[in-house]
Amino acid sequence: MEISETIMQKATTLVEALPYIQKFQNKVVVVKYGGSAMTDENLKMHVMQDIVLLKLVGLQPIVVHGGGKEISRWIGKVGMKPEFINGLRVTDEDTMEVVEMVLNKVNKSLVQIINNLSGRAVGISGKDGSLLHCVKKFSNGQDIGYVGEVVKVDTSIIQDLLSQGFIPVICPIGFDDHGLSYNVNADDAACAIAEAMHAEKLAFLTDVEGVYRDFSDKSSLINSLTIDQANEMIRNGELQGGMLPKLQNCIDAMKGGVNRVHILDGRVPHCLLLEIFTNQGIGTMIEKSMDASY
Amino acid sequence: MEISETIMQKATTLVEALPYIQKFQNKVVVVKYGGSAMTDENLKMHVMQDIVLLKLVGLQPIVVHGGGKEISRWIGKVGMKPEFINGLRVTDEDTMEVVEMVLNKVNKSLVQIINNLSGRAVGISGKDGSLLHCVKKFSNGQDIGYVGEVVKVDTSIIQDLLSQGFIPVICPIGFDDHGLSYNVNADDAACAIAEAMHAEKLAFLTDVEGVYRDFSDKSSLINSLTIDQANEMIRNGELQGGMLPKLQNCIDAMKGGVNRVHILDGRVPHCLLLEIFTNQGIGTMIEKSMDASY
Amino acid sequence: MEISETIMQKATTLVEALPYIQKFQNKVVVVKYGGSAMTDENLKMHVMQDIVLLKLVGLQPIVVHGGGKEISRWIGKVGMKPEFINGLRVTDEDTMEVVEMVLNKVNKSLVQIINNLSGRAVGISGKDGSLLHCVKKFSNGQDIGYVGEVVKVDTSIIQDLLSQGFIPVICPIGFDDHGLSYNVNADDAACAIAEAMHAEKLAFLTDVEGVYRDFSDKSSLINSLTIDQANEMIRNGELQGGMLPKLQNCIDAMKGGVNRVHILDGRVPHCLLLEIFTNQGIGTMIEKSMDASY
Amino acid sequence: MEISETIMQKATTLVEALPYIQKFQNKVVVVKYGGSAMTDENLKMHVMQDIVLLKLVGLQPIVVHGGGKEISRWIGKVGMKPEFINGLRVTDEDTMEVVEMVLNKVNKSLVQIINNLSGRAVGISGKDGSLLHCVKKFSNGQDIGYVGEVVKVDTSIIQDLLSQGFIPVICPIGFDDHGLSYNVNADDAACAIAEAMHAEKLAFLTDVEGVYRDFSDKSSLINSLTIDQANEMIRNGELQGGMLPKLQNCIDAMKGGVNRVHILDGRVPHCLLLEIFTNQGIGTMIEKSMDASY
Amino acid sequence: MEISETIMQKATTLVEALPYIQKFQNKVVVVKYGGSAMTDENLKMHVMQDIVLLKLVGLQPIVVHGGGKEISRWIGKVGMKPEFINGLRVTDEDTMEVVEMVLNKVNKSLVQIINNLSGRAVGISGKDGSLLHCVKKFSNGQDIGYVGEVVKVDTSIIQDLLSQGFIPVICPIGFDDHGLSYNVNADDAACAIAEAMHAEKLAFLTDVEGVYRDFSDKSSLINSLTIDQANEMIRNGELQGGMLPKLQNCIDAMKGGVNRVHILDGRVPHCLLLEIFTNQGIGTMIEKSMDASY
Amino acid sequence: MEISETIMQKATTLVEALPYIQKFQNKVVVVKYGGSAMTDENLKMHVMQDIVLLKLVGLQPIVVHGGGKEISRWIGKVGMKPEFINGLRVTDEDTMEVVEMVLNKVNKSLVQIINNLSGRAVGISGKDGSLLHCVKKFSNGQDIGYVGEVVKVDTSIIQDLLSQGFIPVICPIGFDDHGLSYNVNADDAACAIAEAMHAEKLAFLTDVEGVYRDFSDKSSLINSLTIDQANEMIRNGELQGGMLPKLQNCIDAMKGGVNRVHILDGRVPHCLLLEIFTNQGIGTMIEKSMDASY
Repeated sequence: MEISETIMQKATTLVEALPYIQKFQNKVVVVKYGGSAMTDENLKMHVMQDIVLLKLVGLQPIVVHGGGKEISRWIGKVGMKPEFINGLRVTDEDTMEVVEMVLNKVNKSLVQIINNLSGRAVGISGKDGSLLHCVKKFSNGQDIGYVGEVVKVDTSIIQDLLSQGFIPVICPIGFDDHGLSYNVNADDAACAIAEAMHAEKLAFLTDVEGVYRDFSDKSSLINSLTIDQANEMIRNGELQGGMLPKLQNCIDAMKGGVNRVHILDGRVPHCLLLEIFTNQGIGTMIEKSMDASY
Repeated sequence: MEISETIMQKATTLVEALPYIQKFQNKVVVVKYGGSAMTDENLKMHVMQDIVLLKLVGLQPIVVHGGGKEISRWIGKVGMKPEFINGLRVTDEDTMEVVEMVLNKVNKSLVQIINNLSGRAVGISGKDGSLLHCVKKFSNGQDIGYVGEVVKVDTSIIQDLLSQGFIPVICPIGFDDHGLSYNVNADDAACAIAEAMHAEKLAFLTDVEGVYRDFSDKSSLINSLTIDQANEMIRNGELQGGMLPKLQNCIDAMKGGVNRVHILDGRVPHCLLLEIFTNQGIGTMIEKSMDASY
Repeated sequence: MEISETIMQKATTLVEALPYIQKFQNKVVVVKYGGSAMTDENLKMHVMQDIVLLKLVGLQPIVVHGGGKEISRWIGKVGMKPEFINGLRVTDEDTMEVVEMVLNKVNKSLVQIINNLSGRAVGISGKDGSLLHCVKKFSNGQDIGYVGEVVKVDTSIIQDLLSQGFIPVICPIGFDDHGLSYNVNADDAACAIAEAMHAEKLAFLTDVEGVYRDFSDKSSLINSLTIDQANEMIRNGELQGGMLPKLQNCIDAMKGGVNRVHILDGRVPHCLLLEIFTNQGIGTMIEKSMDASY
Repeated sequence: MEISETIMQKATTLVEALPYIQKFQNKVVVVKYGGSAMTDENLKMHVMQDIVLLKLVGLQPIVVHGGGKEISRWIGKVGMKPEFINGLRVTDEDTMEVVEMVLNKVNKSLVQIINNLSGRAVGISGKDGSLLHCVKKFSNGQDIGYVGEVVKVDTSIIQDLLSQGFIPVICPIGFDDHGLSYNVNADDAACAIAEAMHAEKLAFLTDVEGVYRDFSDKSSLINSLTIDQANEMIRNGELQGGMLPKLQNCIDAMKGGVNRVHILDGRVPHCLLLEIFTNQGIGTMIEKSMDASY
Repeated sequence: MEISETIMQKATTLVEALPYIQKFQNKVVVVKYGGSAMTDENLKMHVMQDIVLLKLVGLQPIVVHGGGKEISRWIGKVGMKPEFINGLRVTDEDTMEVVEMVLNKVNKSLVQIINNLSGRAVGISGKDGSLLHCVKKFSNGQDIGYVGEVVKVDTSIIQDLLSQGFIPVICPIGFDDHGLSYNVNADDAACAIAEAMHAEKLAFLTDVEGVYRDFSDKSSLINSLTIDQANEMIRNGELQGGMLPKLQNCIDAMKGGVNRVHILDGRVPHCLLLEIFTNQGIGTMIEKSMDASY
Repeated sequence: MEISETIMQKATTLVEALPYIQKFQNKVVVVKYGGSAMTDENLKMHVMQDIVLLKLVGLQPIVVHGGGKEISRWIGKVGMKPEFINGLRVTDEDTMEVVEMVLNKVNKSLVQIINNLSGRAVGISGKDGSLLHCVKKFSNGQDIGYVGEVVKVDTSIIQDLLSQGFIPVICPIGFDDHGLSYNVNADDAACAIAEAMHAEKLAFLTDVEGVYRDFSDKSSLINSLTIDQANEMIRNGELQGGMLPKLQNCIDAMKGGVNRVHILDGRVPHCLLLEIFTNQGIGTMIEKSMDASY
């Protein structure tokens, strides 16, 4: 009687994965969805399939998404001229209206894909159930319009949807005391929601492999960082472009109660499953301290 | 000791209203919201206030709305040319995209108003939780694009929101087996939802006082109609324009399990409260049979 | 389209009343029932109707009543001679037997009226479920017989009746450690029960409009008093006859945990409904402090 | 090592009694309390102690009592003249008032005794919770006043009191559709309540040893009777005076769903305990059929 | 009417017993079963019947048993030679295997007897559900093999069986961190379990009448001892042979939270029932202090 | 960015396995444990690890085991001579005693292994909770002693253990109406329990690869059989030795309500995991009909 190596590998993968399923039962995982994984139709399907599988085996995934290139496309379509201050888009009332319409459209299309994969998604914005309460955010003291900073998260609608077996898909539109609408950065929204939900994990799907010690040297990818180390890197100015605010977000989220944050390479098919259910390191993990016996 | 007449009238109104509150405890009331009540900002506030009060005293209001004049405005804004067949708008893919964006925008703005009034609203479309499953609807056998007919209503997301104390605000976008999006007539959507929820009441906010026996004679307003009488009126061709399909909808809804249907004059401030909590007749009521000891 | 003023007034009353219904949902309201409202058959029906309506819309009314003039009538009927010390009736064993019989008779007749109005009342005395545990009360050190002071309230029978949807109607007969029966002042009993139940409101139905700043000037009616102001009035000796102990009772009840106390004019039909569901001031309200943002 | 006979008897009694405790757990036992057991203070204490012990070990006793000689005493005290038709007391309005007052007084005194024995009793009349709905009862077609026949029993108040651990003590005053009060025969009331509660047992405390085959021969006491045999005795006219209606009541109660009826000798101390927890025959038992493997 | 003395004795026994049934409702009683009561078939049946009756009336009996003479019999049967150190049996691996097999056999035979008496027993050892976690026990520093000392009791399997209406029957086999098996003294196991369960009572069935003040004088039997008095007797060296460790066990158990400990004469039929449900003193009771108003 | 093949294989295995975890959530899987998997210590650990993992991810495994070679070893050890009739061991009273002791010993050792792997096992025999009610089984009409046939399964103890999170480990000892002990064939016991529990799966761990179409041709292994095909094979006499009664057992179990039966090769490490969570065919599956869209 001989047993093929493939079979033995399957057995090994299962013995490795099953305890994680138990470990993460009912745990909340917030996925910031954006980048290539949003524009490449193939990757999009893989991510949505992963989300459905996570739900299927008892985790509680929450999707927070941006609008990608759709927003720019529609801004153009309605004949508006973008204005910038300090390199940031000025979001005036008309722009805001388009942003909200486009984000809601993207939101419902993700809902539809998940439902087609036999998931049960419900799409909401930060206005629903007063989820994302905002104040106006200034850029170096300058008014750049309806850009919001989240000051309070009312998680009741999320709790409700989770308890009934739905997958919440959230677009980052907030509101203020006067009932005005605000555009919120999707990374910021994901962090705020992860904190408020005391998420077990917050995973950013990005277009890089992770954090590099030396950005020019692709072999210097860092598998795991403690909060202290991450702070050190920020202080030393070792980080490139978009990674700096993202890492700052990670640190803030963990201080706010999120257990672990992952910067994943969204270009690896099924990166979510691999990160959660295997010992395989996909991207960079930020944890509280090195000797955590996780 | 003298008691002012105003005080006595208050007492009388209360003695009249209180039993209705008990009677309709936890009962579902579907409100089709449209017409003047949607465009006049004053009336809009009154309707939204009524919705919040209904919820406050233990009823379960559900709002189903259309897009009114916003859709046409945006169709124009993006430079599209409307096409018509048999007087019906042809909803091609581009049009559908605009319709969905606008309806979702209107949806979130109603949510925001209710929340500002201390209600707790959540806005969903018919895609969320697979609420409105559709097939393509043809107009006299002709393809007029993404216009949907509801064939199945999955009420679980509504049930869920109600059970958690939220007010569902629904825009009539459906989906089909292939994951395509469909524009659904708001009256049709309200009926389908009211039937599926076995609503106690379905109320249409309209721009007329109700159904007239003789449309040219405003004094011929009918306070109540049985199903049989309504059928008779349809058969006799006594009805004008938009009232015919609306009355047909009413009849269908009642056959589907809705207890009473009301065609209300949305121009009367607080018409919803008055209809539900007083003996005052506002508009036309359709009931099962005349001698119902309601 | 014109809307009659009556209709608008109804709408206004409803908009005013509905939030109170939510606010007082499941809240306990103790009504001390006595005076004209007990002897005038018309007023009696209005009070009982109000009690039934309060229950109907979700409040938890509790009625505590005295015996009014029936006790004296029966004392005479059985040929007993009343004896007085310091102006207080001496309640010897024979008198006590008559008092208990008459109060229970009155108790059951109120139960019957409420039940006839479709309410669901249950009449109990302070002996049932060991509700009112008493000790003998002395008048200036002198023994005046079976007059009791409540020292412990076991609310379990009341809680039980409320939880099953009944309206408790209570006559103020207590018991002591030796199993003896005691006559308790109805105002005292109502206060003790309101405190023990942490009632939202305690309402005394009286034969006056309320508390006057100057009793001889009917225009000096006070709408609301803080505890401090009430104490001040007592200290200054500004109060007339029966109002002094009643106001002292009010203060004690509020210190014991009752939220608000009302001295209502039982001669105003539906005074209970008007007080609870409108902004209309009926009588005098005692509240904790002036700036309470109630 | 020697064991005294007393100890062995105790062990035997326990081995005999314990299974009954399990068997009757939560079972309803209606006790019609009257006769010597009501007038002899010693027996009264034994009965009340038994009631408390039954409750203590998990049965659900319900006491239904009459007024005994107190009613006549008070009729005289208020100077009324009894009137009789066909040997039955005519209960006019004034008489009814006295009857109700006295029965309620007796009711509360039983409540007080049980409470003093650490039981938790609540006394109610047939008006409370609309327990005993009556119609006027005629005697051979003649109007004898406010004597009622029970036509409907609303057990909700009893169920409620039992579920909260109280012992219901019930006096047989009923009401009719017009809210009038009626005097109900205590045996009849006990039967009606036992039927409506589907009681396991209905026990009549009487002043005789039980049913005799030959009333003049005290050795002819019958231990058990089937319904058929009881019917036979009634048909044969073998029964004396008060036993005939009582036996008829027993038969009716069993047809109405009561499992067993007992005519107990209330003069035997602790007759209730002995009947329920031992194999000892106390009085006469009526059962469905002889071979019942009870 | 005369009442036989037997009947009156029954009534007295019941009045005496019933309150205990209520008092001990749902209370845990651990019975260490051994000695004559285990070898005499007649007594064995009485004890098992008592266990079933205790369960029947709502107590929660737990049986802990030894193996008696069966172990020695089987040690011989398999041709093993017993070895002793300091008078204690050396339990090597082979001996341990036989001990475990015999105890499990005895365990299942007790289960079968209880089930035949309509009880519902489940037999477990200290390995099941990790009930008895042990470390090796040394005798004066010398290794005597697989003799265990209980260091942790996981009561979840017992709680589970009790909550489902089963009677747990436990044989004293423990396990250690390495998964090895240990023989635990049955008295020790009973104590450890009684402590962990916060038992109301722990009863040792023994072959003596109880504790004697002077072992040679059978009239010096002690009915009750406080912990202090028991300690005093141990300190004074007044105790004979097996009674010393047993009394030490009793004291430890009570310090660990057991309410009362009883040393019962297992040769008295139904000694358990008599002890629990009567005022009869059977053997010696150890209680916290003399004036405990138990 | 390159992704190793190992990582992709892991992702594929997960995407394949996860839906099964959802599908079998809370489903009962009965594992008949015997053969090489019981004697080879390595395989034993793999099986027990699989059992613990099944439990961990939400399935409800139940282990039924035999005694393997231990019984024969002990029969010899105590100097007994085996007797055979028709090739079957005659189980006289002494043999039965040894069988029961050995099976219980094996039972507790499996419990210990599972507990050491962080599982929570409880070992029971068919006597506990009256699990396996038997009658004597005859071999061709001849009395072969205490060999039992299961006639009734009382699953309450199993349900209880499962509901509390335990893994039941069961040895096949039964009892009859007279309280006698019976040895039950482990395959029979597993079938009876699987039927009574309406198990989703019944898996036999055997020492063969599965069922062969032609036993002499190892390449003729059958992956799946319908009940009809299995019946056909039995009728045609195509089956070898031990496989015939096993296949008959499989058929009976499925008729009794088990969904699927698997004859697994216990020599393949983790065969249970592979069968349940992959598309990999391990051994032979018997299903209801071929086109089952499982």
